[in-house]
Amino acid sequence: MEPDAPARHLYDRDPTVSTFGIELVEAHADGATVRMTVRPDMCNGYGMVHGGLTFLLADSAMAFASSGEGEAALATSAGIDWFAPVRAGQVMTATAIRGGGGTKAVVWDVDVTADGVTVARFRGRTRKIGSPVIDG
Amino acid sequence: MEPDAPARHLYDRDPTVSTFGIELVEAHADGATVRMTVRPDMCNGYGMVHGGLTFLLADSAMAFASSGEGEAALATSAGIDWFAPVRAGQVMTATAIRGGGGTKAVVWDVDVTADGVTVARFRGRTRKIGSPVIDG
Amino acid sequence: MEPDAPARHLYDRDPTVSTFGIELVEAHADGATVRMTVRPDMCNGYGMVHGGLTFLLADSAMAFASSGEGEAALATSAGIDWFAPVRAGQVMTATAIRGGGGTKAVVWDVDVTADGVTVARFRGRTRKIGSPVIDG
Amino acid sequence: MEPDAPARHLYDRDPTVSTFGIELVEAHADGATVRMTVRPDMCNGYGMVHGGLTFLLADSAMAFASSGEGEAALATSAGIDWFAPVRAGQVMTATAIRGGGGTKAVVWDVDVTADGVTVARFRGRTRKIGSPVIDG
Repeated sequence: MEPDAPARHLYDRDPTVSTFGIELVEAHADGATVRMTVRPDMCNGYGMVHGGLTFLLADSAMAFASSGEGEAALATSAGIDWFAPVRAGQVMTATAIRGGGGTKAVVWDVDVTADGVTVARFRGRTRKIGSPVIDG
Repeated sequence: MEPDAPARHLYDRDPTVSTFGIELVEAHADGATVRMTVRPDMCNGYGMVHGGLTFLLADSAMAFASSGEGEAALATSAGIDWFAPVRAGQVMTATAIRGGGGTKAVVWDVDVTADGVTVARFRGRTRKIGSPVIDG
Repeated sequence: MEPDAPARHLYDRDPTVSTFGIELVEAHADGATVRMTVRPDMCNGYGMVHGGLTFLLADSAMAFASSGEGEAALATSAGIDWFAPVRAGQVMTATAIRGGGGTKAVVWDVDVTADGVTVARFRGRTRKIGSPVIDG
Repeated sequence: MEPDAPARHLYDRDPTVSTFGIELVEAHADGATVRMTVRPDMCNGYGMVHGGLTFLLADSAMAFASSGEGEAALATSAGIDWFAPVRAGQVMTATAIRGGGGTKAVVWDVDVTADGVTVARFRGRTRKIGSPVIDG
């Protein structure tokens, strides 16, 4: 099995990746990277990307990372700090790495960058639920 | 000025509310309520609403609440706990209330419900930036 | 069994309660209240209670609450917002209530007050570990 | 001025450092390291260090780091994930590094280790208040 097989399997079945134009750049057992171009319809009344979409991108990186060992996992909680505004046309990249925890419960650190600037940092928690990502 | 005038002003200029079908139910100086129907294209590979969209809805409630006194505010950080899955067709309602803080920096508590069940709880921080929401 | 029996059992075996002068005011299956008088040696260089001790008091309330059903539980993560300074001689009271979650993993909300003012709010997560609080 | 002068100045006036035996290992404009030996009276009813004291140590590292540029700063919020138990006699070391933010509001990442193991990770926020750490 390729290191990114579980994440690719999830990605291929995830309707939100096309809704938001999320690209899966890389995935393995200890992390994942996703990328999204900010569209005008993702921006709020101040002309900046809705902070919820920055969170959503980071959360997607965590979701693909947390499936990297082949067992399905659910996010239980997460937090984000926003540092800099991002505007339509910019590409945001979110990279999740394992931050700690054990075999079932894992904490993930996700950095979000745009044009080389760290625009947000995210820390989230997932828990494996005992079923494989890829059936059969 | 109506109690919800600043929030309505922001809402009318916010492209994301139509992107996601977010309805502004109520807004005043100490809180706001928004509502969104979960669409199939908002669901992940497990058939549940993407946790990032639950966060986005809560974050929107905070954004409208934080403008309620007429001064623009930016979100600086936030966290969420997810409790129960939500599926396409369900309506999620997010209600933000002032949780603490002072005049510039405010902490908001947002509960998200669907069909009478609390599906997530969010706590976020905003900071006023000194400019009015409604110009001129 | 009295509603506060598991918490009392933990309390009687916990050396930190005498280290910090923490009093267990109340405990039951869905919450707990603790109280502590701020001593000069708990204050930082600005003459205010060390924020870590406000956290510690809230964390203790969560610990006693999370044992309220008789099964041992461990804290996995928590966060706090500080709102107002507290000085030596003031009494801080922390009340934990169940904020959500399921049977194993629970989210607790803890408010900390001093002289009727909410000085901090805490949200933490515990997980039951399958062993009883009271052996034998 | 030595790079650690503001932190040393705060440290020398902070009663809690002797209460808990906290040692200031290093401090500069972008971080600080503190160290504490776990005493039996810092342990809870399960014989493990009270999670609130792990938080307090991390919070102290942030406090010394946030004063590193010579301007007083207050902590506004923070969160922690606990990964492994620590027992009496072990030495915990907390290292704070600047995680993001701007000139006034800063986000700090603090890792806490004991015997080479990361036992907790902390993320906190401080805000400068406009007065110098060292008067006169």
